[in-house]
Amino acid sequence: MTGVSEGTRLVRTQGVTAPAGFRASGIAAGIKASGALDLALVFNEGPDYAAAGVFTRNQVKAAPVLWSQQVLTTARLRAVVLNSGGANACTGPQGFQDTHATAEAVAAALSNWGTDTGAIEVAVCSTGLIGDRLPMDKVLPGAQELVHEMAGGLSGGEEAARAIMTTDTVPKQVALHHSDNWTIGGMAKGAGMLAPSLATMLCVITTDAVADAAALDQALRRATARTFDRLDVDGSCSTNDTVLLLASGASETAPSQGDLDDAVLRVCDDLCAQLQADAEGVTKRVCVTVTGAATEDDAVTIARFVARDSLVKTALFGSDPNWGRVLAAVGMAPVRLEPDRITVSFNGSAVCVNGVGTAGAREVDLSGADIDVTVDLGIGGERASIRTTDLSHGYVEENSAYSS
Amino acid sequence: MTGVSEGTRLVRTQGVTAPAGFRASGIAAGIKASGALDLALVFNEGPDYAAAGVFTRNQVKAAPVLWSQQVLTTARLRAVVLNSGGANACTGPQGFQDTHATAEAVAAALSNWGTDTGAIEVAVCSTGLIGDRLPMDKVLPGAQELVHEMAGGLSGGEEAARAIMTTDTVPKQVALHHSDNWTIGGMAKGAGMLAPSLATMLCVITTDAVADAAALDQALRRATARTFDRLDVDGSCSTNDTVLLLASGASETAPSQGDLDDAVLRVCDDLCAQLQADAEGVTKRVCVTVTGAATEDDAVTIARFVARDSLVKTALFGSDPNWGRVLAAVGMAPVRLEPDRITVSFNGSAVCVNGVGTAGAREVDLSGADIDVTVDLGIGGERASIRTTDLSHGYVEENSAYSS
Repeated sequence: MTGVSEGTRLVRTQGVTAPAGFRASGIAAGIKASGALDLALVFNEGPDYAAAGVFTRNQVKAAPVLWSQQVLTTARLRAVVLNSGGANACTGPQGFQDTHATAEAVAAALSNWGTDTGAIEVAVCSTGLIGDRLPMDKVLPGAQELVHEMAGGLSGGEEAARAIMTTDTVPKQVALHHSDNWTIGGMAKGAGMLAPSLATMLCVITTDAVADAAALDQALRRATARTFDRLDVDGSCSTNDTVLLLASGASETAPSQGDLDDAVLRVCDDLCAQLQADAEGVTKRVCVTVTGAATEDDAVTIARFVARDSLVKTALFGSDPNWGRVLAAVGMAPVRLEPDRITVSFNGSAVCVNGVGTAGAREVDLSGADIDVTVDLGIGGERASIRTTDLSHGYVEENSAYSS
Repeated sequence: MTGVSEGTRLVRTQGVTAPAGFRASGIAAGIKASGALDLALVFNEGPDYAAAGVFTRNQVKAAPVLWSQQVLTTARLRAVVLNSGGANACTGPQGFQDTHATAEAVAAALSNWGTDTGAIEVAVCSTGLIGDRLPMDKVLPGAQELVHEMAGGLSGGEEAARAIMTTDTVPKQVALHHSDNWTIGGMAKGAGMLAPSLATMLCVITTDAVADAAALDQALRRATARTFDRLDVDGSCSTNDTVLLLASGASETAPSQGDLDDAVLRVCDDLCAQLQADAEGVTKRVCVTVTGAATEDDAVTIARFVARDSLVKTALFGSDPNWGRVLAAVGMAPVRLEPDRITVSFNGSAVCVNGVGTAGAREVDLSGADIDVTVDLGIGGERASIRTTDLSHGYVEENSAYSS
């Protein structure tokens, strides 16, 4: 990867507060009946407030998505407030008013703390069950506590990462310390409803680099297209997906666009791997790579057909090298194919060459936790990969029992 | 349904041998290691031999599909030979030679029996594991036995229906006796890999009506588009899907095109319901209906998005009226929507009106085996339904353990 010099370090013990100029907090506001952390704040102390965002492509968008898209038209953010325990989606005009009121409450609390902030500078993210109103009697008082905790807490980044978890079993954080003395950090949540454009997830990325909103936007769109857009756990796309990137400029270092692009890509890629590894019911981390395609888009399309195929996914759960199901899935993609040129490999072992099975194809060992499925189309020179998981009893159990 | 008079009867105890002029048989040729029935024959004694066929849209087509498509260019069939225990897909030129040899063996056996038949009059269907060659030392001698059994057997139709089963737990047959003294009968198999254009399935339909190939073709295409094309168990489409319709003319009755269309539709619809009810791991029979669409195609597209959504299907397995997942699935369809006009009902109870949940939506009882999901888009006047099933532990178990 170009632009990442020696000395650049990626660490998973830090997140959004690793870059200079950011504070964060996570509290238990009482939104979740369990009493677990459920409300988080990420605050940009400046001196810059440039920001960019990428949102769900679902036509049914949650109130916080509609709000944050409006806020982002200013290309500027002071803070992000995030809650788990409720998606505030399909809640009508009242749900939108709840989001607005949340932003107002956070802005007021920040202003009281001495940082003059308007609601229009506060993005809102929500995750949880679709269709219920949020308990605003819990959310609004939480705003004060979030600001109070943020002011004093050193471990705010991790608390924030924990507070946005739903069916996630571990918080997801990463920080990249660039050798040129600037830093980028991020947190993400998401374990199911992971596809197809963004994973169903909330992700906040912070950096102390000096970068304007256009530079951030380019870096973020380029990175999400290659990472979150290619993570597909269950083919389901959420109403709430949001990825935000905030820059404080506190490092006083202005990286080149190439360096910024690469750093954002690495952070997104690492968070993506963490989401995949903690997906609902996952027992196998599967990477489907399509090579030899006429175009990269064709490769993505075909890889996605394989990654979403229930019969492929259940076979992989059973460690069964059932390559015929892979070919059947490939054959349904709306892409011109030459079936007699298709070669399929599992973990590097060819199981089907030129459309015909190889001797020993049924004996390939897929018992490990990582499975690579490679499909070479034999048509062109383009390639792409999709990360997915197997389809397990755990996935069925979690999603039939958990109303999410 | 027009054209089906009083006195017309649909019975499930009869199948392809219900119409006059057809014989059938099913034997255990030794293709399946279990010793179960695995080879079937349907034979048209005439006087007519008109036939039509519809095949998988998968670009990866099994050898028997390629063969039968060639055979059908003559619009004429004397016999269909079908095997379970192996799909003969992705088996290269040798697999195609195996199919050809099977048709030759059946033609020779029929000719020996006194019916001069050429291989070009024999369609071949296979189902089972993709990628392995068929044991031709079992298949070829089986041709003689099939013809021998067919000659004497009265219960040949049911034996044939049993011989094509794979993970099916029951044979699927139906016959419609028209009040105008002609009959149509059919058999089908298929329990998984059921979607999206045809179910993964083999289906042979016979009639003693007098009808030319063009009339049969119209009736068959019209019927499959509304039945098998709208059965979607797991979004996976097979390499082997085949539906054949053979007419003997033995009733000497020539129904109107409308009567023929309706009868074929009813037979296909009934077989479809039988496939749905016996799908792998099914615990819920789910019908997703989209109303208020601008076009019927839009309605089909949206219904399919809902019917394929793993999170919707796992929720239904858990009898969870999680309508938010339905809305999230609807929102991803590539169809223009007005989210604020969408109304969702489960079993007739509105759970979401104009994009917002109703009081009591979480209490709707979905504990029964049949679940109707209706999505009204509030845009136009068109509608369509897709039959599907829930996503259960049984589905995962069957497909992770059974290399099919």
